[in-house]
Amino acid sequence: MIPRLPFVEEFHTFRMNTLTIPLCDDFHVHVRQDDMMKAVVPYLAAGGMSRVLVMPNTTPPITSTAQALAYKEELEAVDPNITYLMTMYLHPDITVEEVHKAADAGIVGIKSYPRGVTTNSDAGIEDYSLYYPLFEAMQERGLVLELHGEIPSDHERDICVLNAEEYFLSHLKQLYTDFPYLRIVLEHITTAAAVAAIREAPETVGATVTAHHLELTVDDWAGQNHNFCKPVAKYPHDRAALREIVAEGHPRVFLGSDSAPHPRNAKEAACGCAGVFTSPLLAAYVADTLESLGCLDRMRSFACEFGADFYGLPRNEGTLTLSKQTCTVPASYGDVVPFRASQKLSWSLCPHS
Amino acid sequence: MIPRLPFVEEFHTFRMNTLTIPLCDDFHVHVRQDDMMKAVVPYLAAGGMSRVLVMPNTTPPITSTAQALAYKEELEAVDPNITYLMTMYLHPDITVEEVHKAADAGIVGIKSYPRGVTTNSDAGIEDYSLYYPLFEAMQERGLVLELHGEIPSDHERDICVLNAEEYFLSHLKQLYTDFPYLRIVLEHITTAAAVAAIREAPETVGATVTAHHLELTVDDWAGQNHNFCKPVAKYPHDRAALREIVAEGHPRVFLGSDSAPHPRNAKEAACGCAGVFTSPLLAAYVADTLESLGCLDRMRSFACEFGADFYGLPRNEGTLTLSKQTCTVPASYGDVVPFRASQKLSWSLCPHS
Repeated sequence: MIPRLPFVEEFHTFRMNTLTIPLCDDFHVHVRQDDMMKAVVPYLAAGGMSRVLVMPNTTPPITSTAQALAYKEELEAVDPNITYLMTMYLHPDITVEEVHKAADAGIVGIKSYPRGVTTNSDAGIEDYSLYYPLFEAMQERGLVLELHGEIPSDHERDICVLNAEEYFLSHLKQLYTDFPYLRIVLEHITTAAAVAAIREAPETVGATVTAHHLELTVDDWAGQNHNFCKPVAKYPHDRAALREIVAEGHPRVFLGSDSAPHPRNAKEAACGCAGVFTSPLLAAYVADTLESLGCLDRMRSFACEFGADFYGLPRNEGTLTLSKQTCTVPASYGDVVPFRASQKLSWSLCPHS
Repeated sequence: MIPRLPFVEEFHTFRMNTLTIPLCDDFHVHVRQDDMMKAVVPYLAAGGMSRVLVMPNTTPPITSTAQALAYKEELEAVDPNITYLMTMYLHPDITVEEVHKAADAGIVGIKSYPRGVTTNSDAGIEDYSLYYPLFEAMQERGLVLELHGEIPSDHERDICVLNAEEYFLSHLKQLYTDFPYLRIVLEHITTAAAVAAIREAPETVGATVTAHHLELTVDDWAGQNHNFCKPVAKYPHDRAALREIVAEGHPRVFLGSDSAPHPRNAKEAACGCAGVFTSPLLAAYVADTLESLGCLDRMRSFACEFGADFYGLPRNEGTLTLSKQTCTVPASYGDVVPFRASQKLSWSLCPHS
């Protein structure tokens, strides 16, 4: 009898040229509105997801429970088989009462964007004190605070897109110190500094990592518009730190794709929009990357378990099978160019292949 | 009688709302070939230039005296009133004899590009030893070595577009140590590290600074394709160091625009070309920037004197007058979008205004 190893299923199926895991969670996705919403939502399931955390930066932003629930209904009308975890956009309009209302309605988190938090801030430094009553209520009710962890550029202080995340980390520390029971997720981390901050943070603090930041450095978006996103991909040593914390299976680090579709002409333009589109092949991108890093055995925990555990949600049921079979990423999905367009992935979950 | 100050002419004319200086030198310009050449060469004079150092990265590259002279003839056919200082592309095909031939023919320099120098290099490190016999002959004959001072990205060694220039500086030091009489120009410097290296280098080593690197940081090309160039603009503190060495009037730091026209659709694309187009308004861009830095009195030395002195050329005759009058940069010149398109400059040399 062969001794039963952890992840034995993956090792077994790997030999069999298939990888069978539960359906995945994407703890950070932009699914847009109107026609773009209708176009991209069906790709969530195609990419291997069963549950997604929906970003609230719509037009107008989601700042009330009612808006969040209405948005959820629209999403369910497009694909009712996905579980949509809803968030609100941190904003001075949100009251403590609204936080309680949101908690009662099953909204799972509130997202802080740099622009929002700089309202009423002093000299470009984030001032979260305005929101402390909300954080108190969120802590009480178990809502998660999701942070876009960058501060605005300030050239007098040498702050730019390259160090905006590192300069944010003191704010993260202040927040988890002041709210020791508030669960906080530092979204789409991109730097070795952020990785170190997550390691030293308490159990209440997690981080999402995108599929694309595991692959890209600054070299890949310099002139290559479809790889341009915010936070920008940084130095090779930053990417190495991201890869390392995922490869070691850190339990507070999990998949959040930040998949953000833009039409081609909004990317290939004088001023290109920030965002990389990964939803349609998300699990395949992750499998391809993790295999190349020699840690395909982390796929299940990174994409299916750690995020659910952090958010206190049941792990997904249902099964996703990837086959060890080359899949060519389409040149575009409608008018949206995906990550690694026209390139080959070593794992396939797609009828495309 | 008012005592006669240095730059009294500028101070006087500044009060009069005009700035009168000699015609300028651009010690680094790409004037392309064929139709693009015919389109952009007339803008050299329009931008206030009388003399330009012509880059040899044509197709095929200029690797012989005969090619350089033929190229010069083509340029003179478009505008005979500009003095074209010709260069060759450092390449294994160039012999010591060719260096002597070039010197006899009045060619002023040889340009080293990263890709060229990595031929026969070890593990991505530039190996200039292949070219030492050429450098010996260049030193003897007074040819200038122009360096694109970046080493190729190497992610294993954490080298990327952000630190490629800094990693190059040890090669610069080796070269000026091994060839103490060879004049060397570190082209289009972009970092505080390069500024420091120029300060500590001997009198034989100079540097060019572009108009756009005095204005841009990484924030300005992240998503803004017309500001994307190589070397990429870096941190705010790097820009501050460039501004400082120009503002203080360092005599070995002078204007080299690296003006590099590309058609709009080659910039606004999935993979955008690197290059910023400044030729048509070059002196106006520089005046606008230097005034904003409080050092308009450095215009004459930076754009008309230090470069000529370094290259051992007579200073230009002829007069350029700029007026203190708002000028709007055109949205495009034909199919080429210029630097700061549609923005206002505070100085004008243009009938456009």
